[in-house]
Amino acid sequence: MLNVGIIGASGYTGVELARILAGHPEVRLTVATSRQYAGKPLAEVFPNLRKRVDIVCENLGVGDLLGRADFFFCAVPHKTAMDIVPRLLDAGKKVVDLSADYRIHDAAVYEAWYQAHSSPQLLSEAAYGLPELYRDTIRAARLTANPGCYPTSVILALAPLLRNGLIHTSTVIIDSKSGTSGAGRAANVGTLFCEVTDGFRPYKVGGTHRHIPEIEQELSAAAGHPVTISFTPHLLPISRGILSTTYASLTEAGKEADLQSLYEQTYGSEAFVRVLPAGTTPATQHVRGSNCCDIALQQDPRTSRIIVMSAIDNIVKGASGQAVQNMNLMNGFAETTGLMGAPFFP
Amino acid sequence: MLNVGIIGASGYTGVELARILAGHPEVRLTVATSRQYAGKPLAEVFPNLRKRVDIVCENLGVGDLLGRADFFFCAVPHKTAMDIVPRLLDAGKKVVDLSADYRIHDAAVYEAWYQAHSSPQLLSEAAYGLPELYRDTIRAARLTANPGCYPTSVILALAPLLRNGLIHTSTVIIDSKSGTSGAGRAANVGTLFCEVTDGFRPYKVGGTHRHIPEIEQELSAAAGHPVTISFTPHLLPISRGILSTTYASLTEAGKEADLQSLYEQTYGSEAFVRVLPAGTTPATQHVRGSNCCDIALQQDPRTSRIIVMSAIDNIVKGASGQAVQNMNLMNGFAETTGLMGAPFFP
Amino acid sequence: MLNVGIIGASGYTGVELARILAGHPEVRLTVATSRQYAGKPLAEVFPNLRKRVDIVCENLGVGDLLGRADFFFCAVPHKTAMDIVPRLLDAGKKVVDLSADYRIHDAAVYEAWYQAHSSPQLLSEAAYGLPELYRDTIRAARLTANPGCYPTSVILALAPLLRNGLIHTSTVIIDSKSGTSGAGRAANVGTLFCEVTDGFRPYKVGGTHRHIPEIEQELSAAAGHPVTISFTPHLLPISRGILSTTYASLTEAGKEADLQSLYEQTYGSEAFVRVLPAGTTPATQHVRGSNCCDIALQQDPRTSRIIVMSAIDNIVKGASGQAVQNMNLMNGFAETTGLMGAPFFP
Amino acid sequence: MLNVGIIGASGYTGVELARILAGHPEVRLTVATSRQYAGKPLAEVFPNLRKRVDIVCENLGVGDLLGRADFFFCAVPHKTAMDIVPRLLDAGKKVVDLSADYRIHDAAVYEAWYQAHSSPQLLSEAAYGLPELYRDTIRAARLTANPGCYPTSVILALAPLLRNGLIHTSTVIIDSKSGTSGAGRAANVGTLFCEVTDGFRPYKVGGTHRHIPEIEQELSAAAGHPVTISFTPHLLPISRGILSTTYASLTEAGKEADLQSLYEQTYGSEAFVRVLPAGTTPATQHVRGSNCCDIALQQDPRTSRIIVMSAIDNIVKGASGQAVQNMNLMNGFAETTGLMGAPFFP
Repeated sequence: MLNVGIIGASGYTGVELARILAGHPEVRLTVATSRQYAGKPLAEVFPNLRKRVDIVCENLGVGDLLGRADFFFCAVPHKTAMDIVPRLLDAGKKVVDLSADYRIHDAAVYEAWYQAHSSPQLLSEAAYGLPELYRDTIRAARLTANPGCYPTSVILALAPLLRNGLIHTSTVIIDSKSGTSGAGRAANVGTLFCEVTDGFRPYKVGGTHRHIPEIEQELSAAAGHPVTISFTPHLLPISRGILSTTYASLTEAGKEADLQSLYEQTYGSEAFVRVLPAGTTPATQHVRGSNCCDIALQQDPRTSRIIVMSAIDNIVKGASGQAVQNMNLMNGFAETTGLMGAPFFP
Repeated sequence: MLNVGIIGASGYTGVELARILAGHPEVRLTVATSRQYAGKPLAEVFPNLRKRVDIVCENLGVGDLLGRADFFFCAVPHKTAMDIVPRLLDAGKKVVDLSADYRIHDAAVYEAWYQAHSSPQLLSEAAYGLPELYRDTIRAARLTANPGCYPTSVILALAPLLRNGLIHTSTVIIDSKSGTSGAGRAANVGTLFCEVTDGFRPYKVGGTHRHIPEIEQELSAAAGHPVTISFTPHLLPISRGILSTTYASLTEAGKEADLQSLYEQTYGSEAFVRVLPAGTTPATQHVRGSNCCDIALQQDPRTSRIIVMSAIDNIVKGASGQAVQNMNLMNGFAETTGLMGAPFFP
Repeated sequence: MLNVGIIGASGYTGVELARILAGHPEVRLTVATSRQYAGKPLAEVFPNLRKRVDIVCENLGVGDLLGRADFFFCAVPHKTAMDIVPRLLDAGKKVVDLSADYRIHDAAVYEAWYQAHSSPQLLSEAAYGLPELYRDTIRAARLTANPGCYPTSVILALAPLLRNGLIHTSTVIIDSKSGTSGAGRAANVGTLFCEVTDGFRPYKVGGTHRHIPEIEQELSAAAGHPVTISFTPHLLPISRGILSTTYASLTEAGKEADLQSLYEQTYGSEAFVRVLPAGTTPATQHVRGSNCCDIALQQDPRTSRIIVMSAIDNIVKGASGQAVQNMNLMNGFAETTGLMGAPFFP
Repeated sequence: MLNVGIIGASGYTGVELARILAGHPEVRLTVATSRQYAGKPLAEVFPNLRKRVDIVCENLGVGDLLGRADFFFCAVPHKTAMDIVPRLLDAGKKVVDLSADYRIHDAAVYEAWYQAHSSPQLLSEAAYGLPELYRDTIRAARLTANPGCYPTSVILALAPLLRNGLIHTSTVIIDSKSGTSGAGRAANVGTLFCEVTDGFRPYKVGGTHRHIPEIEQELSAAAGHPVTISFTPHLLPISRGILSTTYASLTEAGKEADLQSLYEQTYGSEAFVRVLPAGTTPATQHVRGSNCCDIALQQDPRTSRIIVMSAIDNIVKGASGQAVQNMNLMNGFAETTGLMGAPFFP
């Protein structure tokens, strides 16, 4: 049994990590930190965990954490993470970091979109934790940067086209829609029930969302040359789920390729990526509560464009589930351990 | 007082027409037809109308309708409408048709996307009922084709750019999201509460939705040359509302223009189009229950694209409200009569 | 034209007052206060009001308000209201107060459930603003205490039974369910979208909700003797709407009475109370956005109980709509002015 | 490995059975029937099951089923079930029946609320499948009648009080609220998204819901004498979840008892019943997707009533999860096998 800790357990990714780990046969949750709820059972903060998770939140510094677990999920905001992670690594711990702090390989890019980085030396070392693309790297890593939720949905959708030169990379447009849990559990007027329900809106339009450099880094790596995208996020009146609709113009090679087969071959042996039959579309309600990413593609013969659509549960494949998938790889467990639950519908 | 009738009163556009007309000081609803609910008060079918609308549904043929009203809203499905409308016109009635049957000027295009047309001679006569673009034509019309819900949101969003040559017309991509009332009131598994709630999905992807020829007709007219678009509709877990996110590459002229000012000038005197301040975004919950269309635009300097976003209530500005706006114009009433109610929020 | 002011315009009752008043032909909104949003147009705080309401929020003391309007809606929290209202009255203004501060006639009861009262001398003067029960009193009042949302739904449902001695008053149980807008617009974790959506829960169980003394005061008045009730509120995942399900054992007189007729006679001439046909049930979605209260009743012959159900929109008949109804009465306008819009459905 | 079959797999209880069984280590799903979807993979009907469940729906008579599995879940409507179950038993199979056909011990009562019974001889044999009350009986049964969803929530809530004579049984009032999945997957206007969302309503008021005789049978058994209840169901705009709020007057013994301790002792060792701390309330969103039943109780000293509240996921503890729990007991598996997943929140 591996002793694991959650640093920052009181957010939505924290409760979901605890839920998943409660059903994981190879690990034991031995410590969970929360400044706000120190001294409270986590199951009091999140009553869904009653009789399933009995850990008590603690407010601990890094030094006090080291003896408490061998593996850590760091689920604190970016900037905070970069001060914690190096000390965990120095003490010989392995870490999956769920913040943005180690996702960007290029410190200059990170600093342009976020702020100064206090441990840039780790940027080149950290594995980008998308197992379907970087499985072997992750297996060998002591630090894995868990991908952002939007990037997960987008990169899995577009990588096969980019790797094979099937689309004009200057034409990529990504229209993404996310459930409200992506905004976290902070008390803000903008995410009150009455502000969100029975409504829909875009936000951070025009190339300003911080997931853009992460998406571009990975799409560029897949394409073999720099890719610049348009990306527009929207807020859905649902709690869980991201649906990304991506558009690109096909190259001549793309027009002639059997794209459906390409995707089926690429992802056929993946447990968590499901390529849907031609003519169907993914839906967030069909991946809810699971680590699945559903992908469908459709050509538009009138415009020679390809539309690739992907759906994930943003808290699972877009955060905590993928983090556990990475933990499994980093510790030699079967990759799917604790994660094979089917989505729940309705 | 103008006597008006609703043909096909038992759908969601029917009940909304009845709701709006109940507060309209210049008209009297004198007849409402429904095959399914013949003999039932409309307020029994839709209890929201109790003590506000006291008409009883009747199952009447066109001949029996002629003596009952001077103006008709035809709210039956396409194909059915084309058999009713000519007989109403022949009897000297004026008509707003809410189906698709008279929206497309070119019979060949109509027949390619729908089916054979039984009264193609009316296609060139019918006014396209988007008052912000065709106000004078509508005033003079005896038949107005009420626009589709998606087209209303898209055309108002893009017309200013196209008229002024500010975007490359081959780059237009439209990602639209609609509330479920757009699917009507028929009993289908796909629109059951449990199938739609807490979920999101695209449908009719790849250039197949029947609103495409209508959108392209109007965008082409605005541009002065044929425009072909990519259009992807999605189903939102809300009852009312459409949000369209449209993308296009700016021409050199477009890059230099003050687009915010252009929109403010274009729509500044319109009662129902609200151009939002720069930096903000529209939201369906801010137009709910009203005849408003909210529009915002944002340039993406990284990709030289413009993103125009628009929000309407699909049953009001996208159907019944716009139909009443057209009725007002066709009968010499003030255009805004009965339609100035502010949106409901929360 | 009557000049009216809203004190505390930035909550959900404030925006709804502004929406209703924008369509009221007899009044002009001349001042709206908000500490938090001073200097901002109210339509910037609530974008649904754009092009319909052009007032700017101000942070004003009572002294500065007096010259700005002749009639005031006081929409600030209880305890704050009691310091403002007396000064408005002293200056000769008429007031509808939407807080709880003047609803309870007995200062000792008020102080037992709330806190010390600074203007108890007004408690006996204030009209209880339920027009269907106290129309004439309200017409003559300079201060009307607008009823609470739950009390409005409950009192209208039970008054006819109590006035006629048709139920055993010791058996009254009230199970109420409210939309989340009733919790206001403060940023709390408990009313975040993700905490409320796709869920349902009771709160303040066991006789602790502050609407209890108000309900009991009015039910006692209707019965002619003290009535003690059980009252359980619940939180619905909807923005607007209250549905109260009330239970009581019928007296012998009650078992023999034609209760359906009693209700139809009691409320037949009311514009805003709709007694539903026997065998049907009210639904919050059928009163949404309107000042209506729908009531249905059903006997349970197995237990000799009567179940009375009522539905209102908590922000309209439960707050701002009823406040305008009271303003109409207090100023000699037709009672229904500005309030006859039919509910919107779907 | 036990071979199990699902008869009637295409409803919401069917898909949930398949989801749960896919994660159950002791069983193999070997046959699933559906008339409507014969020949289709179940994962095509319910895409959430892709890559997790690979069974194909078949349209089979009972005779053809016998060789295909050793244990059956019968998930067809009442009346249909009573013709299938006896033949399965005759062939030596064990059965959990999810319909109402074997829940009522007294054939006359069954026939008064439903219709004539074709296999009444089985009524006395069938175990009532509420494991927390009838664990040993179920272990020995070859036929278990899976309880209704409402009855499960109500019986677990009230049994401790009734067994100990702590409430006056003539005062029991049950106000229940259910998610829409309880209405099944049939295409009806009344359960369309637009009819249900953002709304709330009671139905089958006044002692007419068919779960009443089932509830009364079990409450009477707990009390030791006949109990007649008032029961009002309501429809919630959520997909999963039932919350029951139950009221009763305390006897003198009840007023003096430590009720919180009684519940904690009664259910302390149960894996699926969670008694909440005093002063808190259950919420459907905290049991979502799990086999848990959360119970809280609160005395109302003003009225000497006790309010017991319970929350379940109606498809899991109220149907398919409880069915698997019963299967576990009937086959000697650990009772919690496949069912220990924590609820999903948010």
